[in-house]
Amino acid sequence: MKENKIPYKTYLDESEIPTQWYNVRADMKNKPAPLLNPATHKPMTAEELSPVFCDELIAQELNVTDAFIDIPEEIQDFYKMYRPSPLIRAYFLEKALDTPAKIYYKFEGNNTSGSHKLNSAIAQAYYAKKQGLKGVTTETGAGQWGTALSMACSYFGLDCKVYMVKVSYEQKPFRREVMRTYGASVTPSPSMTTEIGKKILAEHPGTTGSLGCAISEAVEVATHTEGYRYVLGSVLNQVLLHQSIIGLETKTALDKLGVKPDIIIGCAGGGSNLGGLISPFMGEKLRGEADYRIIAVEPASCPSFTRGKFAYDFCDTGMVCPLAKMYTLGSGFIPSANHAGGLRYHGMSSTLSQLYHDGLMEATSVEQTEVFKAAEQFARVEGILPAPESSHAIRVAVDEALKCKETGEEKTIVFGLTGTGYFDMVAYEKFNDGEMTDYIPTDEELAESISKLPVVEENF
Amino acid sequence: MKENKIPYKTYLDESEIPTQWYNVRADMKNKPAPLLNPATHKPMTAEELSPVFCDELIAQELNVTDAFIDIPEEIQDFYKMYRPSPLIRAYFLEKALDTPAKIYYKFEGNNTSGSHKLNSAIAQAYYAKKQGLKGVTTETGAGQWGTALSMACSYFGLDCKVYMVKVSYEQKPFRREVMRTYGASVTPSPSMTTEIGKKILAEHPGTTGSLGCAISEAVEVATHTEGYRYVLGSVLNQVLLHQSIIGLETKTALDKLGVKPDIIIGCAGGGSNLGGLISPFMGEKLRGEADYRIIAVEPASCPSFTRGKFAYDFCDTGMVCPLAKMYTLGSGFIPSANHAGGLRYHGMSSTLSQLYHDGLMEATSVEQTEVFKAAEQFARVEGILPAPESSHAIRVAVDEALKCKETGEEKTIVFGLTGTGYFDMVAYEKFNDGEMTDYIPTDEELAESISKLPVVEENF
Repeated sequence: MKENKIPYKTYLDESEIPTQWYNVRADMKNKPAPLLNPATHKPMTAEELSPVFCDELIAQELNVTDAFIDIPEEIQDFYKMYRPSPLIRAYFLEKALDTPAKIYYKFEGNNTSGSHKLNSAIAQAYYAKKQGLKGVTTETGAGQWGTALSMACSYFGLDCKVYMVKVSYEQKPFRREVMRTYGASVTPSPSMTTEIGKKILAEHPGTTGSLGCAISEAVEVATHTEGYRYVLGSVLNQVLLHQSIIGLETKTALDKLGVKPDIIIGCAGGGSNLGGLISPFMGEKLRGEADYRIIAVEPASCPSFTRGKFAYDFCDTGMVCPLAKMYTLGSGFIPSANHAGGLRYHGMSSTLSQLYHDGLMEATSVEQTEVFKAAEQFARVEGILPAPESSHAIRVAVDEALKCKETGEEKTIVFGLTGTGYFDMVAYEKFNDGEMTDYIPTDEELAESISKLPVVEENF
Repeated sequence: MKENKIPYKTYLDESEIPTQWYNVRADMKNKPAPLLNPATHKPMTAEELSPVFCDELIAQELNVTDAFIDIPEEIQDFYKMYRPSPLIRAYFLEKALDTPAKIYYKFEGNNTSGSHKLNSAIAQAYYAKKQGLKGVTTETGAGQWGTALSMACSYFGLDCKVYMVKVSYEQKPFRREVMRTYGASVTPSPSMTTEIGKKILAEHPGTTGSLGCAISEAVEVATHTEGYRYVLGSVLNQVLLHQSIIGLETKTALDKLGVKPDIIIGCAGGGSNLGGLISPFMGEKLRGEADYRIIAVEPASCPSFTRGKFAYDFCDTGMVCPLAKMYTLGSGFIPSANHAGGLRYHGMSSTLSQLYHDGLMEATSVEQTEVFKAAEQFARVEGILPAPESSHAIRVAVDEALKCKETGEEKTIVFGLTGTGYFDMVAYEKFNDGEMTDYIPTDEELAESISKLPVVEENF
C-alpha cells in the first residue's frame, strides 16, 4: 500500500484547528422551531431560560443568524490537548471489503472521555466558569457525556453533579469511576435526592431509569441550587454549534487532500455528533455550493427519525423542560431492555429534525446484531474497537461500500467514528457469546407513546 | 499559551516513521549475557531455541552486531494504522506544577491494545505468519500484551492462545472480552490444560497465578502443538528491538523541535517500554555522542533493579525456559496481593540489566499510592487517564520537575506514557475510596526468594 498518495491518517496542524464554530442555522431558510415554554406554549425567552442554562449558552442557543462564532482562547487551548482528531483513510477496511469505494472516518475517540462529547463539554464548562458559577448538573446514559463533562469541570475547577441512568450506573461501574477520578459526584437516577426522582420511584419502584428521567432530576437540582446551572450533551442547538468543530476539521482535511465526499454518514441519538460532522457540508448544500448524500443512522429499537412524529414534545420525562419541535417517539418512550449502548433518546435535535423534514438528509435504522457484526469486522481490520453508538455509522458505511462493489462505483464515503467501546464490553460479551438479540418496537407501541404528545398550536 | 513555538502535540509525517529498528546491543561494549540452556548451562543455540520461538525472531534475539534491522513493509503498513504516536508537550502539567522544567511525553496509548505492546506484537505475529505457523501462545498479566497480540494475530489470520494470570482474568473480564473480540482464546492460568498447570494447581490449589506460571503454560502448549510457537511481550532482546520505534520516533520529533532532553524516564517491568524509549539515546551515550540521565522506575513492591541480584535465573516459574542473566528477585517471587497493575515480573531485560550494571542508567522505586496520586493529577490536567504502569514514570517526572522548581533549573524531561488505564478502574476505585495500600517486601522475603537462584558458572 506504500504508493498511496493519501496518508492513512491526516492530522491538521494545531494552527489549522478552527478558531470559530459554524452555526448551520444561519444558512437554513427554514429555521428550527423555537423552544416553547411548557406552561404558556410561547417561545422561551433568554430570561426564562436563565435559571436553567448559562447566559452565554442561551445566547448561542437562540442565535439563528450568525454563521460563525468565535471560540474563546481558553477553549482553543483545551482543544489542543486532544485535537485535531485524525481523519483516517480506511485502507484496511476497503481491502477487507474488496470495494472500489474510498472510505474515510473522522475519529473522535482519542481522549479519555472516549468520544466527541468533550468538544461541547469544555465549551459549556468554560461559559459556566466565566459566569462565576460554582458548578453544573447533567444526566448521562452510556456515560460518555458524563465523563467528558467531568473532565471539563475538573479542568476549570467547577463542581460537577452527574445523574446517571441507573441501569448504566450498575452495568458500567468503571465509567462511574472515571468520573469520580475527575472529581465528579455520580448519582444513580431515579434517586431520592430530587422531588421528581421520588415521584418516579413511587410510581415505578423497580425502574432502571431513563435519560428523560435523569434530565428531569439534573434540571431540578440545577434550578434549586444556588450557583448551579444545567448542561446537556446533545439535542440542543448550542451542542451542535460546538460539535461543528468535527465537521470543520473534516472539511479542512478533505480539502487539503483534494477529496470531495459523495456520502456522509453519522450515527444519531440526539444528534450531537451527526450535527457537528455534517454542518459545514450541509452549509454548502444549503447555499447551493455543493451536494452530498447525508445519512443519519439510528437504532431500529429507538427510531425517532424513521418512525417518529415531527411535532413539539417534552425533552424530559418529568416534563419540566421546554418543549422542542423534533422527530420524537414521545417523552415516555424507553427502548427495550435488550438495547445496548447509547442512542436511546426519544427525540432528535430540532435543527436536524428540520433539515430532515426539508429533505436535506436521509435517515435509516439498523438492528444491533448487524451493528455489532460491523463493529467486530472494523475492530479486526482497522485496529480500533468502536463504541456501539459509532458502530451504527460503520454498519451503513460498510453497506454503502458493498453496494459500490456491486455497481463498481468509486464513491467516497466519510463517516463519523465518534468513540471507543472500552466501557461497552458487557455488550461485546453478549455479542461474542451469541446472546445479543434485536428488538423493533411494534407500530402499536409507538402509536401509544406518540399519542401522548402535548397538543401545541404553532401560532407564535 | 498561544505564542509557544513548540506545539502541544508533535506528530511525525507517515513518511518519517522509522523503516529500521535500532539494536542497541550493537553499540554496547559489554554485551548482554547470552541465554543459557537450563540443563547444560551452555549458551542456547538457534537450533535449541527453534521449538519455542519463530526462526526470524531467534535471529533477532541472538543478533548483537547489526545496529539497524529493516522493518518489513507489511509491518510498516500496520504501524501506519496507529503510528506515529504523538510526542506531547505537557504544558498543562508544567503549569499545574509551576515548574520551570519542560516536560514532554511520548504517548503510546492511542490504540485499542491501550499500550506500546502492539509495536512488538505485530512484528512477532508477522514473523510467525511468514514462517507458515498456525498460531502462537503467550501469557498476559495486566492484559495489555494479550490484547495487543490478539489484534496482531487477527490481522494476520493466526490463531492466538492467551494464558492470562488468573487474578487478572477474574478482575479484568473486559480485557478478556477485548481479546475474544479479536478472536483469541483466553485461559485463566494456572489451568488444567497443561502438565505444568496441573502440577502447580496440585501444589498450590488456591493460587491466583503469576506471570512466571502463565509463561510456563504457554511455552508448554507451544512446544507440544504442531505449528505453534511461543511469543513474549517483554524482557527479550527482540522485544526491545521492536520497541525501539518508540525511541526513534521520540528522537526524530525532538530533533525536529530542536529540543535536547536532560532526563529520560520510563517505567520498567520487564523493560519493553523503557528499553524501546531509551534505545537511540542510550546509543548516543554508548558512542560518546551525548549524555542523558536515564531513569528506570519500578514498583517498590517488585523492585528487581533496586533490590534484586544481577545473576542468571529462570524466566518462568516452571523452570522450562532458558536462563537469563538479569536483575532478579528470584523466579518464585510474586508481588504482594495489594499490588495493582503490571510491572510484576520477577526479572528484568538482560540488555537493560547490563546497561544498569555498567552505570549507564539509574533506577528508582516508588510506592503505588504515590503513583496513583500522580496519575490522578496527570489525568485531571493533561486529560489522559494513564495506566498504573505508565504512572510510575509520571510520578518520577513530576518529582524531577518539582526539584527544578526548587532549584530554578529549566531541565527538559521526557518520559514514556506507555498506555491508558481504562481497564484498570478497579485500582482507581480503590484509590478513590482511600483503600489503596502500599507494600514493600522485607529484606528477609527477598533474601529467601533470591536464595533459590540456580547456581551457574559463567565459564562459556
